[in-house]
Amino acid sequence: MPGLIQHVERYRPIHDLLAGELEAVREIFRRQLASDLPAVNDLCRHVARYQGKMLRPTLTLLCGLASRPEDSRLPARLGESHRVLAAVAEIIHMATLVHDDVLDESDLRRNAATVNRLRGNETAVLLGDYLISNAFHLCSSLGRPDVSRRIGATTNELCAGELLQVHHRDDWSIDEPTYFAIIERKTASLISLCCRLGAEESGATPEVCDALASYGRLLGVAFQIQDDLLDLVGEEGVVGKSLGRDLEKGKLTLPMIHFFGRADAAARSEMLDHLSGSRLHGRPLRVESLLLAGGAVHSARETAATLVEQARRELSRIPDSAAHLLLDDLARAVITRAF
Amino acid sequence: MPGLIQHVERYRPIHDLLAGELEAVREIFRRQLASDLPAVNDLCRHVARYQGKMLRPTLTLLCGLASRPEDSRLPARLGESHRVLAAVAEIIHMATLVHDDVLDESDLRRNAATVNRLRGNETAVLLGDYLISNAFHLCSSLGRPDVSRRIGATTNELCAGELLQVHHRDDWSIDEPTYFAIIERKTASLISLCCRLGAEESGATPEVCDALASYGRLLGVAFQIQDDLLDLVGEEGVVGKSLGRDLEKGKLTLPMIHFFGRADAAARSEMLDHLSGSRLHGRPLRVESLLLAGGAVHSARETAATLVEQARRELSRIPDSAAHLLLDDLARAVITRAF
Repeated sequence: MPGLIQHVERYRPIHDLLAGELEAVREIFRRQLASDLPAVNDLCRHVARYQGKMLRPTLTLLCGLASRPEDSRLPARLGESHRVLAAVAEIIHMATLVHDDVLDESDLRRNAATVNRLRGNETAVLLGDYLISNAFHLCSSLGRPDVSRRIGATTNELCAGELLQVHHRDDWSIDEPTYFAIIERKTASLISLCCRLGAEESGATPEVCDALASYGRLLGVAFQIQDDLLDLVGEEGVVGKSLGRDLEKGKLTLPMIHFFGRADAAARSEMLDHLSGSRLHGRPLRVESLLLAGGAVHSARETAATLVEQARRELSRIPDSAAHLLLDDLARAVITRAF
Repeated sequence: MPGLIQHVERYRPIHDLLAGELEAVREIFRRQLASDLPAVNDLCRHVARYQGKMLRPTLTLLCGLASRPEDSRLPARLGESHRVLAAVAEIIHMATLVHDDVLDESDLRRNAATVNRLRGNETAVLLGDYLISNAFHLCSSLGRPDVSRRIGATTNELCAGELLQVHHRDDWSIDEPTYFAIIERKTASLISLCCRLGAEESGATPEVCDALASYGRLLGVAFQIQDDLLDLVGEEGVVGKSLGRDLEKGKLTLPMIHFFGRADAAARSEMLDHLSGSRLHGRPLRVESLLLAGGAVHSARETAATLVEQARRELSRIPDSAAHLLLDDLARAVITRAF
């Protein structure tokens, strides 16, 4: 069972169903990216290895399953459109990973070399473009322009969020609202749309769609905070990708914002020396200990935990089902994960 | 009158019509890219400056006008879908320019600084993504999934062509079929689709649609050969962008392929010394004179001219009209242009 959800024996039927559906999503992903050019296929095979948690497809499918349970223990049926939308979201996500690795000059992703490391930045930029294009091509196969339009609007948001982040590079006075504006756009918008579309494709009521979209948004923000925490205090071998890149790239994330909000003059000044001096390499131990000692890591974790609790409360607005329980598990796993 | 078409007094009505339609396309372009984030708007305003020849919008509109002439001198009416498709094609093209400038490390575009030069590679990569996303978002506003699907298929081709090109970097034995496979995908596919969609939106017969699609493909290949010639032997101040980048980036284009196909052992060896030695900077005069003396530039020009003649012959399959005459002018201008 891939992903973040722990296997619990009494949920076996829905676990097995989800595993089968995710395999079908992977097959759509593979088929969509296949080219008559061997050079392109080699690259796509490499990218397929980055599929890890499959968070976005899992949410699309689970929200579909949770939206119209005919029986609280038996899952609703999923349609091909759920799988296609799940694959579209995963391809978009892969495109952002490939381009993020170029921006961050990362060498490692899912414990494998990044495309930019293996084949250079040019190939990585173009491969990301190929993925984005294929995501829209696949999406349009649904014959649902309204869905294509909303996915396009969301990827616009996603890119604008990334642009806003780069715009604030080396801005050591960035505030919480700006940080949240960035991560809501770059991460939470697509995750929220996955939840909403999964529900809509199952014919869910507007209230259920709204509840799941809101669940996705809150969970998405918490997910990004956890990602940012792992970049600062995670273990590279466990996380499986290059860490410390946010500091190297001058990206201030929540723990650092919390640090600056509560540090005394001496600690602030010491941290700024670390950040503003010559380019950082890796994560200086002293930066980590300043963040831990000042309680900044702890308070960022608390913020993420509060968001997860809010996300879980949104689930009270959807019917009981096995999928509902898995969505609840998933929300909790987002911030307990070490990878 | 922007673009490649010379103003001829007796075509004034269609020139004026086209100029007005192109202004409407620019307005759709601006409106689509507008964001609530000032940082994003600044970038999009800069990109709008790259709009030069507007080749793809011009072809979309002219093929629309040429497809259903109610009178041979009066143009057919264009619909909003023509303008939207023209804007979609231009946004896609802008995205490829922004990313190409990153790949080619170019500093100059339309006599202005490139985005990568002004704001760095990260911003340029993300801005290109924002443009691609917006192109699909705009396209889906037509409510025509079949059109979105074909545009997606074409941008898949375009990206695959670019990937194939990078795959053959520093490959001094690349042959003509591979060169043509690359440029048909990366350049001619979108230009051909612009022509076909312009015609289809005017309700053209399948024969007219096929003729114009074929015209666009041939013209697109000739256009790229001319671009590649200008990179080798054009004048930077006239072309308005960084030149010599193909050699610096190890991209073999038609003149060089022709050179290697006909050079004697000494000339081959001298050229290879230039190409394979330490990284080239700019365009060594000796490379230019080897290409000119060996007749390689001349023969590449002849290939482009032959393609243009073939493109013009396709026009014999469409009805007479003023737009028809402009399409004929445009085909000739593609290879006589110095910019």
